[in-house]
Amino acid sequence: MSRVALKVAYDGSAFAGFQRQAEGGCRTVQGVLEEVLVRLCGRAPSALGLRAAGRTDAGVHASAQVVAFDTDRAWDASRWRRSLNGMLPDDVVVAAVAFPPDDFDPRRMAISRAYAYRWLIADAPDPRRRHATWHVPGPMDRHALGRAWSGLVGHHDFTAFCSTGSNLRSPWVTVHRANVEFLGDEVILRIQAVSFLYHMVRRLVGSVRHVAAGRSPVEDYLALLDRDRKGLPPPVTAPPQGLCLDSVVYPRGLVSWESPPTSPRGPIDAGT
Amino acid sequence: MSRVALKVAYDGSAFAGFQRQAEGGCRTVQGVLEEVLVRLCGRAPSALGLRAAGRTDAGVHASAQVVAFDTDRAWDASRWRRSLNGMLPDDVVVAAVAFPPDDFDPRRMAISRAYAYRWLIADAPDPRRRHATWHVPGPMDRHALGRAWSGLVGHHDFTAFCSTGSNLRSPWVTVHRANVEFLGDEVILRIQAVSFLYHMVRRLVGSVRHVAAGRSPVEDYLALLDRDRKGLPPPVTAPPQGLCLDSVVYPRGLVSWESPPTSPRGPIDAGT
Repeated sequence: MSRVALKVAYDGSAFAGFQRQAEGGCRTVQGVLEEVLVRLCGRAPSALGLRAAGRTDAGVHASAQVVAFDTDRAWDASRWRRSLNGMLPDDVVVAAVAFPPDDFDPRRMAISRAYAYRWLIADAPDPRRRHATWHVPGPMDRHALGRAWSGLVGHHDFTAFCSTGSNLRSPWVTVHRANVEFLGDEVILRIQAVSFLYHMVRRLVGSVRHVAAGRSPVEDYLALLDRDRKGLPPPVTAPPQGLCLDSVVYPRGLVSWESPPTSPRGPIDAGT
Repeated sequence: MSRVALKVAYDGSAFAGFQRQAEGGCRTVQGVLEEVLVRLCGRAPSALGLRAAGRTDAGVHASAQVVAFDTDRAWDASRWRRSLNGMLPDDVVVAAVAFPPDDFDPRRMAISRAYAYRWLIADAPDPRRRHATWHVPGPMDRHALGRAWSGLVGHHDFTAFCSTGSNLRSPWVTVHRANVEFLGDEVILRIQAVSFLYHMVRRLVGSVRHVAAGRSPVEDYLALLDRDRKGLPPPVTAPPQGLCLDSVVYPRGLVSWESPPTSPRGPIDAGT
């Protein structure tokens, strides 16, 4: 018996979130993964012990969710990847496989997680990106947006940005990085932290939209980190489809991902 | 009775192409537009006389298809847009409205069309972009790709790149522009011409992939424009989901598009 880790990408549009739900009938990423693993490994779902780095809500995507499970199949990374991708539906893809230590816990051992939230800045909505962006029409103060978002870096009390009563853990979170990228007609709000409170990213995004639209000063947005509401409109939760779990980071050396072999001609020359 | 033109964006994934088909049962963009217009205008589909600038195949997208129809509703652009978008399914959006002359023909009066074809350059496929890109793994010779693609500009015989027996018109096409853009992990192949032969863009893209992968020299690719097949592999038709009709150009002054009003604070500051 040994532990296998998967780096999984999915289009969250047709899922009721990552986590399997007590009542059946809801399609979840965990449910789909377990169904395929049960067929491949011949074990009951409970014996797999599938765990994930983070739970994503309905409609939220992942380009690199991390899950781990136990199996006695001694396959190499390439065979796991091919077998799983051959059976998974086309909205879930295993991008890489690793063989971490047997006590690897993808959630508790993660040292940080990074999310990206995409806005589509255009007069008209784009039907092709309706499942991947939040359509934000109107003028935009890029400078104020950048100042407000990057001001999130540090150790702060995010009470004002989390759903009330959603969990009992501390509202203090350390944000390592927060930056805004302008890519064509999209604005990508990136944020990396050890962990996130429930709905925290979507509320941060919903509120910073007021700043980007010039309706709230940057200072009032950042004052929320001191739980000072001032005259700011109540936090809006941005819709799920703009959000994507982009990476989960582990201590160096803990997980060695094996990606598909690249051609003998050398690495791909992409990304400027 | 007057003619109304619409600039229409759609996600082609769930459509059997643009054109309404003789047998029912196929969901088409034209069918969906006509159904809504019939309800709004109280006219039979034949009385609308709906015409489009170009027919897109099943799975092919549009960010700016142009259609025109006749109506006696004297609505302004904003009311047309709101009424149509309120009734259309969420994979079709009317982005702009115009009131062209009554003899406006969106197909015959177009002076050029521009298409974009997207490759995803990555080891693993991305489930979030499976309906919008062609996954092209492996190494890539950017320089050769750029030379081959931009070599398409000019007046050429595209016989080698069109489906045989598909139409009787001349195989000579004037390509105004052809350029390659590298945007993150995507390669965007753009091409603009007066008109295109059936499957021409998808065949050009399918064949240039051999060049990008280093399997064919640029010279052999461009020799196809002289109908010289040399040792080149037979043209492959690239899959439809990477293709998008990006714009249709009309003589200056013929069509004045009215987009959604921007906020009084001025134009959107997007796109670097």
